Amino acid sequence: MQLKKYTDYGLRILMYLATLESTDKPSGKLVTIREICDTFSLSANHVNKVVHHLGKLSLIETRRGKNGGFMLARNIDAIRLDYVIRQLEGDEAWIECHKPSCVALPACELNTIVAQGKELFYQYLNQYTLKDLLKNKAQLRTIFTSTP
Amino acid sequence: MQLKKYTDYGLRILMYLATLESTDKPSGKLVTIREICDTFSLSANHVNKVVHHLGKLSLIETRRGKNGGFMLARNIDAIRLDYVIRQLEGDEAWIECHKPSCVALPACELNTIVAQGKELFYQYLNQYTLKDLLKNKAQLRTIFTSTP
Repeated sequence: MQLKKYTDYGLRILMYLATLESTDKPSGKLVTIREICDTFSLSANHVNKVVHHLGKLSLIETRRGKNGGFMLARNIDAIRLDYVIRQLEGDEAWIECHKPSCVALPACELNTIVAQGKELFYQYLNQYTLKDLLKNKAQLRTIFTSTP
Repeated sequence: MQLKKYTDYGLRILMYLATLESTDKPSGKLVTIREICDTFSLSANHVNKVVHHLGKLSLIETRRGKNGGFMLARNIDAIRLDYVIRQLEGDEAWIECHKPSCVALPACELNTIVAQGKELFYQYLNQYTLKDLLKNKAQLRTIFTSTP
């Protein structure tokens, strides 16, 4: 059981954007898809999809044009990790009862118990924001700027 | 993010075995791979692997020979869900930092936070045993015996 790569990439992009800010409030510095791809060695195809999704969630704002790019659209302490992960993961159950459909489903307690565990996980993440990922902000900044 | 099918199948097999028992203590009724495959519409290849693993974990006992099969090796209230799921899932982190290796890793807080959430999930499951999955035992038994 692991977070989808898609979710992981979304979190990396938000972290990257957050390290650019000197305060909690977005400064409007623009980042390009290429910059993200180069930093994390990811394909533009993957990054494009996630960036589009983050835009739809109003977590980032995009400026079009020659010097365009994207930036955080909210304060870093207003972006909760549970929200980001829930949205990027989608609302699937943590146990797959339907593909193929499990014969035990009408009488099964397991899916209920696992679903409660899933909620606990998200409740725990709800106490953290993007700001909490920047404990080592200076070191992250150094890593990101020194990536060829 | 979802439990592996492998883990799911392991839980289904244990549930199936547990519904055969009239008390919490294993009665020694033997079940075959074919019976599990037919009930849950699973391939023998998948079921074989999981049954072998459950045997190595001493959760089931196998009797070889013509009328052989397998049965629970422990009381149903002694088989904790966190143990079963942890063992079948393997000890992988819930966020993949290494394939490919993430450049942020030396300064990243996300993996720590997600790992703590993972532990909470397992702590929650620790309060449940196989017995808790049998709340609708009679209904499960009917389902399992009426599967063609």
